[in-house]
Amino acid sequence: MARAIALARKGQYTCRPNPSVGCVIVNENQIVGEGWHWQAGGPHAEINALDAAGNRAHGATAYVTLAPCDHYGRTPPCSQALIKAGIRRLVYGCDDPNEAARGGLARLEQAGITVTGPVLEADALALNTGFFQRVRTGLPRVRAKIAASLDGATAMASGESKWITGPAARSDVQRLRARSGAIVTGIGTVLADNPALTVRARELELTDAAAIAELQPLRVIVDSRFRVNEDLQILRQPGEALVVTARKDCAVDGAQTVTLANGEGKVALPELLYELGRRQINDVLIEAGAKLTGAFVNAGLVDELIIYLAPKLMGSRTRPMTALAFDKMSDALDLELSDVRAVGDDLRITAQLRRK
Amino acid sequence: MARAIALARKGQYTCRPNPSVGCVIVNENQIVGEGWHWQAGGPHAEINALDAAGNRAHGATAYVTLAPCDHYGRTPPCSQALIKAGIRRLVYGCDDPNEAARGGLARLEQAGITVTGPVLEADALALNTGFFQRVRTGLPRVRAKIAASLDGATAMASGESKWITGPAARSDVQRLRARSGAIVTGIGTVLADNPALTVRARELELTDAAAIAELQPLRVIVDSRFRVNEDLQILRQPGEALVVTARKDCAVDGAQTVTLANGEGKVALPELLYELGRRQINDVLIEAGAKLTGAFVNAGLVDELIIYLAPKLMGSRTRPMTALAFDKMSDALDLELSDVRAVGDDLRITAQLRRK
Repeated sequence: MARAIALARKGQYTCRPNPSVGCVIVNENQIVGEGWHWQAGGPHAEINALDAAGNRAHGATAYVTLAPCDHYGRTPPCSQALIKAGIRRLVYGCDDPNEAARGGLARLEQAGITVTGPVLEADALALNTGFFQRVRTGLPRVRAKIAASLDGATAMASGESKWITGPAARSDVQRLRARSGAIVTGIGTVLADNPALTVRARELELTDAAAIAELQPLRVIVDSRFRVNEDLQILRQPGEALVVTARKDCAVDGAQTVTLANGEGKVALPELLYELGRRQINDVLIEAGAKLTGAFVNAGLVDELIIYLAPKLMGSRTRPMTALAFDKMSDALDLELSDVRAVGDDLRITAQLRRK
Repeated sequence: MARAIALARKGQYTCRPNPSVGCVIVNENQIVGEGWHWQAGGPHAEINALDAAGNRAHGATAYVTLAPCDHYGRTPPCSQALIKAGIRRLVYGCDDPNEAARGGLARLEQAGITVTGPVLEADALALNTGFFQRVRTGLPRVRAKIAASLDGATAMASGESKWITGPAARSDVQRLRARSGAIVTGIGTVLADNPALTVRARELELTDAAAIAELQPLRVIVDSRFRVNEDLQILRQPGEALVVTARKDCAVDGAQTVTLANGEGKVALPELLYELGRRQINDVLIEAGAKLTGAFVNAGLVDELIIYLAPKLMGSRTRPMTALAFDKMSDALDLELSDVRAVGDDLRITAQLRRK
């Protein structure tokens, strides 16, 4: 199963909106086939592994990170393919929360296949946290990325912020973007820095970089008063852009526009996330300034913070990580650190927030 | 030598102003004696180890973390004791920068003892970074301790700051204090929080806690305008307090007073550190607010930052880590991270600064 989980990760940048799945087929203690799901519409992990195994799949055990599907979606059900290939035993990592896909395990058992699982469930679930959350709740998993100095500054008071973190951290952010179905930013950042917010193959430092960069995440601009203009870089890149505004009847070249107002002239952030969920986006990455990041955090809409801390002191004339207007220590938001590691000269801290 | 270094650490809280030293005596592949330096005026590590070894020291090898002294200080020279005990070979970790103590190795060689070293020199030097720096330059090693939230806040705008970090971090700070010859704070912090700034045996979580807490570090209050009053807790604790002011002819019950003005009505911070060096203080711990900590950092007088980051967001209405009035990214101070670890629920980041 550990091998199947490692295989599943090979598809993590390209399989969206589908989950990452890996499969290993073992016959008489020999791996006879391996597979993973690479791209929506393409064959599932099980089919790739069965193809590799050929007739050595007969009487074999299949290890799959996610319980096999039983429905005709874009591809025929994997349960039937496993039965047809003569698999004798199936070991699965975790169950599929998708109603439509369920039923695979029952069908396999009916066909006389021994079913064992869940096995390494936490690791198998972790492959697809965003997918599972979106299927269950309609809301994608939301990460906010912050680059700051060790003393918590994200920019000088003037707005100057290039570059706080080093090249290894920036390359890490490229991989974060590539794992996300959408990147959300604010019009303030867009007007100030004119960023592209694209995945750039050269900076990914991954083997399949070119193929991965062909799947650009949706670039979402939160722009309550519709201040975008068609000259902005973010509207002139490969892939799609979406401007979310509180104004009605707006249009700009290079982006789709959606109106989602909260009644106070601002974009309704929960509605924005539901809209992205409807577009089958599992993972959202917020790359915005302190104000918009703070608004998402304050609304309890962020699941995870990924904070890159550069080994420098920027001092006291700076901008904070998040615009959270707390006045008392008891207002402070508690986080749970789930990972701390060195990324080049910088530190990367991953912390979980509890949704309200 | 690794064992001798571990032994040396047993004296790190009590041996000041002397260096921490450990000694192991090995005869025919058996450890026959171990010792460390516990307290200034008491026997040196070598003497303790020779005592433990008795006549098994004859023909043995002595491993000492610091080249043995050759002078009559508070105790007779260790070189002579090693010769007298019949040690055949001496292995040392690092050399002693103290002119007065030098010459031990030469005397041992003259006596026919084989001398080998330095061995594990970096680790042996690291035992006494403060001592070596003070002997060489007259300036103690200066650490600044900062407790902050993950977003870099050390207090709410109101000044509220109890408790940002958890009990494990506070206990860690107690051990930091216990390793320091002086704790430096500012009158602002003293008036606002009325801290004791003592080493408290109960919170040390060390075996020799009671003995360690008997040696309170000097409590230094930077108080340019002499605003102290005798009711403050910091003046009514075991151990000594020192008020450093820019005013002349000031006095307060419970503390010694020294005038060290910089010509602008403020305390001259470099002079303060030289004064502490003259008092044989090897290690200074700054526990102050953003202003005084920032002033020390800005003057290039801090060697190391020890930053405890609590897993919480305190938001944007907060006080910064250090009052450093930088306006451009190029002004930012570069640090070098030397250690990152979990201390309870908090993170402890140790970073080196380069003195200007």
